[in-house]
This record gives sequence, structure tokens and C-alpha cells, in this order.
Amino acid sequence: MKYCFGVDVGGTSIKMGLFTVEGNILDKWEIETRTENQGETILSDIADSLKGKMSEKELNPADIKGIGIGIPAPVTGDGIVKNTANLGWGYKEVNRELRELTGLEVQAGNDANLAALGEMWLGAGKGQKNMIMVTLGTGVGGGVIADGRAMVGANGAAAEIGHICVNYHETKRCGCGKTGCLEQYASATGIARLARMRLAWDESPSVLRSREKIDAKAVFDALKDGDSVAEEIVDQFGAYLGHGLANAAILADPAVIVIGGGVSKAGDIMIPYIKKYFLQKAFFANKETEFMIAKLDNDAGICGAAKLIIDTETSGD
Amino acid sequence: MKYCFGVDVGGTSIKMGLFTVEGNILDKWEIETRTENQGETILSDIADSLKGKMSEKELNPADIKGIGIGIPAPVTGDGIVKNTANLGWGYKEVNRELRELTGLEVQAGNDANLAALGEMWLGAGKGQKNMIMVTLGTGVGGGVIADGRAMVGANGAAAEIGHICVNYHETKRCGCGKTGCLEQYASATGIARLARMRLAWDESPSVLRSREKIDAKAVFDALKDGDSVAEEIVDQFGAYLGHGLANAAILADPAVIVIGGGVSKAGDIMIPYIKKYFLQKAFFANKETEFMIAKLDNDAGICGAAKLIIDTETSGD
Repeated sequence: MKYCFGVDVGGTSIKMGLFTVEGNILDKWEIETRTENQGETILSDIADSLKGKMSEKELNPADIKGIGIGIPAPVTGDGIVKNTANLGWGYKEVNRELRELTGLEVQAGNDANLAALGEMWLGAGKGQKNMIMVTLGTGVGGGVIADGRAMVGANGAAAEIGHICVNYHETKRCGCGKTGCLEQYASATGIARLARMRLAWDESPSVLRSREKIDAKAVFDALKDGDSVAEEIVDQFGAYLGHGLANAAILADPAVIVIGGGVSKAGDIMIPYIKKYFLQKAFFANKETEFMIAKLDNDAGICGAAKLIIDTETSGD
Repeated sequence: MKYCFGVDVGGTSIKMGLFTVEGNILDKWEIETRTENQGETILSDIADSLKGKMSEKELNPADIKGIGIGIPAPVTGDGIVKNTANLGWGYKEVNRELRELTGLEVQAGNDANLAALGEMWLGAGKGQKNMIMVTLGTGVGGGVIADGRAMVGANGAAAEIGHICVNYHETKRCGCGKTGCLEQYASATGIARLARMRLAWDESPSVLRSREKIDAKAVFDALKDGDSVAEEIVDQFGAYLGHGLANAAILADPAVIVIGGGVSKAGDIMIPYIKKYFLQKAFFANKETEFMIAKLDNDAGICGAAKLIIDTETSGD
């Protein structure tokens, strides 16, 4: 079995890739996510697209190890989803349903956990077996790789790094209902908030004051231009993220921490600000942990999904 | 291969057990830990004792899956120890050396991680595959079981739960050099400290004031007698431990959290105080996590060590 498929289901599009089991991407493509009628056609749309690709490439089921699939929701080890925010699904047995639709072995996982697995396999964590990935987008997501495998947890909710408490004195609520979550400060939304609050604090001159829209990109652009107010904002972001990651590292003892998501496009310039506070709260055994920016961008999800099915012991039934 | 050995190396004694691979303890015994000369005889003492047991029970090497061994230090996945606080060892290749001394397969692990594995196999976490164990003794240790396996980490230092930061405003230092570590408040030493500080705060009447020695046991005994100052102290302990465990659960997503170590002998009475603060900071997916007191007491280490070698894929060489 030389090939496998990696599928990454998002709220608006579904990314798919055909891989060799050694880790070469032979083809990748996208289809639309049809969320109408509780997303009832999503899995059959995926099955049709994969079967079309098999015809096009003249592949037999016997050549294919199976399908790995990432879902934007908690997914148990048995591939069961209980609820989704973006797909319309309630309870769904993804492994079973997609296996019945395709005749191929299927293993589903959480999309953020699989993005971490993808970065370990083919990206910034290549060669490592213990890794944390944190994804800084609209929210803060993440995945933990322990001894080469993505942690799943009892409810498919392992590695929800965005909801580590990094401020026990916060009074305002996170989207999850708690207070002081990392996501409140280190997401794109959080960085914009830190920026607005810093600008509101006093009248210090800053190039940010002339911007119409203050977002995470504007803050990092200002930092690159040497703006000292932007530096204070990034320092504060670094404190929350560095402290949160130090606590995560105490559990996971990673060789490398990978920073991904839209915010990470600002690049290596953010790493010293994170590392400074990480070292303040890191256990001595974790002081050598490396920090890297993610490398696979939007392909991390399909790569991790492919790796998941490659590592799954299939019964061959 | 029907049998295996579980070994738990401590600073003063070494516990050993003979197990069936199904999880029955057939025999257990102890020898002294001879730490003199950099602990150079420790592994040969263990080998001699195990070989003696094999003669006594008329067991052949072919009947024995191998030896699992817990060490009070970080241990890498390859069974390498870089340093120990209590045994006198510097760098030591435990798997290789003990294999050469016995002719049996060997897998070493960290003692706290293996205690967690033991509780999952035969104790409070029986039947679960995702578990956190926190050990409240002189310090605070722990182990995380992810999908049935004890997390090891890149440096053999996974699950150092005692060093999660639960108080970003602490100015006094933990033994590890950091500030605000869970161990500063939730260890036996930490509880005694919280008690002394509460008693120093004002003159509220408490049975604790008549005690010559205020330790964790005295505090829980006073709680059981309805002492309201003791209740305040336990509530504060519960806040630190509950918050720390909520952050740990966000990473590990456990079905059950097991509380072990000397402090846990106070029993179930402590659980509501921990759970109350856990629920305050737990991610919604983790709200159903069960809390249990450890069941195996001092046998957890040998049980986990046995389980480790049972689960190790041995080459048979």
C-alpha cells in the first residue's frame, strides 16, 4: 500500500491531498464545504471527490492505505464527533460512515491536532517525536505530539492550549466562558485588543496611531519599523504566550514548540519575545526547548491527516 | 511469556514484584538501596535479587517478558538517566546495563510516571486510557497517561505537574528555582505553610493552635472535626491544586484525575475542595472529569513498572 489520502475539513472548503506513505504530496485540491441540511452531504462529497481522483490516477483500493481526515471539532479515538460549530453536524461516526462510502480505511482526528502532526512529519518539527504546536489565528488552537503521536484525550479535546489560564485576575470572559484564557491575549483578536489598550493608556507617539485598522499584522509591521509602543505590545503578547507555553511544556516536555496560524506570518521576530517569558516559567529540564515558526502553512492539516492514517494499525477488513 | 518483574527504585529501598502479564501480583519484596560509590552496585543488587527469585520460583528466562524499572529521575524513552538526586548516579544506560546483568529485556521509566501507569492498570484508573495522576508528598509529582501509555517527553521530564505555575504574583522561590509552582502550596510542606500563614493572619480560634506540630495530617484531621480555620486552609489548597489540574487537563483531556501520595491518605474529604476550583478553570470538554484517591499506595510503582515492560515491544534478541 503505497498511497493514502489526507483530508482537512474546514467551514468553507475541504482540502485534500494524495500522498505516498513516505511523505511526498503527489496532488492536492479543494472542494466546497456544503453545510446546508446539517452538513449531510459533506462526507459523500468527500467520497465522490476521492473516488474521482482514484479513477483519474488509475489507483486501486489495494494501493491505498486509507484516508486520514481532520475535523474542526473534538474527535474521539474511534472517530466520533459529538458536535461541531461550523459544519452543521451533531453526532457523527466519521470513521464508519466514510469507510462505508469509500471502502477504504478511515481515521478521523481534530484538525488542530493533525496540523501539529503534519508539522512534525514534514514541517518545522521534522525528525522530532515530542512537540507542541500552537496556532495563533482568530482563536488560539494547538496540538501536542507525544512520542510521535497526536494526543487525543478522553473526549477528543486534548491540547486546547488556547484555554490554559495565564491570568488568574482577569474579570472579562473568553468565548469559552472562562476568564484569563491564553486566547484572550495571544490570538489575532487578542493582540489587537492589547494594542488598543496600550494606545488608550497614554499618548505616547506610535505609527499605530495613524493606522485606520489596528490588527496583529499592523503591530508586527510597526515593531519591524522600530516602533517602541509596538514593542511594548509584542512584549505583553510574549509574556502571556511564553507563560502559557511554559506550563504546557511542563506537561509535554517537547523538544520543539512550533508557532503557526495567521499571526505567525510575522515570522521569527516574535520568537525572542515569547522565549524570554517562556524561560522565566519553564522547568529546568525544558530550558533547551527550540522555538520555530510553522513551515507548511495551509498544508499542515492534510499532511497530518495523511500521517494519521499511515500510523493507524488497520485490520484490513 | 507469562511473567514479568516490576522494580521501583527509591532513595532508601528498592521494591520488587513478580507479576503475571494479566496483572496478578504473585510475590513482592524489598532490598536496601546502596547509594555508596555513586550507587554503583544498585543495578547488580537488583539483578542478583531477581535471579534469586527466579531460582526460588523455578522460572526460566523464556517464561519472563522482562523487567520494568522506575527511577526517581527523568528517564528518556531509551532508558537513559542523565542525573539523579538520590541514587548517586550520573549518566546511566539503565536498559542496557540491567539487560546485560540479567539477560532479560528491560525498560526503565520515571517513577512518578510509572506510579500513574500502575494506578491505570490495577488501581483507581482501572479501565481508563487517559488519566492524570498527581502525587502529593514532600513535593508534588505526577504522571500523564495518554491513550494507555505514560507520557515520557523529549527529556524524560513529562508531567512535572508540581511545577505548573499557579500564582504569577509569588515572589518566593520553589526548590526548582521558579516562583508560583503548584508544589509550593499543594505538597505536604506547602499545606503546612498555608496553615502556619493562616494561623499567623489573626487570632481566630482553631484546634490547630493546640497542636505541637502543624502538618498536612493535622490540617485534615481538624477539618474532619469541623474546624473552620482548617476548612479555610484546605479551601486555599484546593484552589491552587484545582487550578493547576484544570490547566493540566486542558493539555491531557483525562477521563479521571487520581490523587496519590502521603497527603491523599486524608481521603475523599479533600475532593470537593479541589473540584470546586477545577471546575472554575476547566475547559467545558473536561467538566465531567472524575476525581479519585489512589488505591495502590506503595505498590503503584512496581505495578506501573510491570505494565511498562508488558507494553514494550521487545525484539526478542
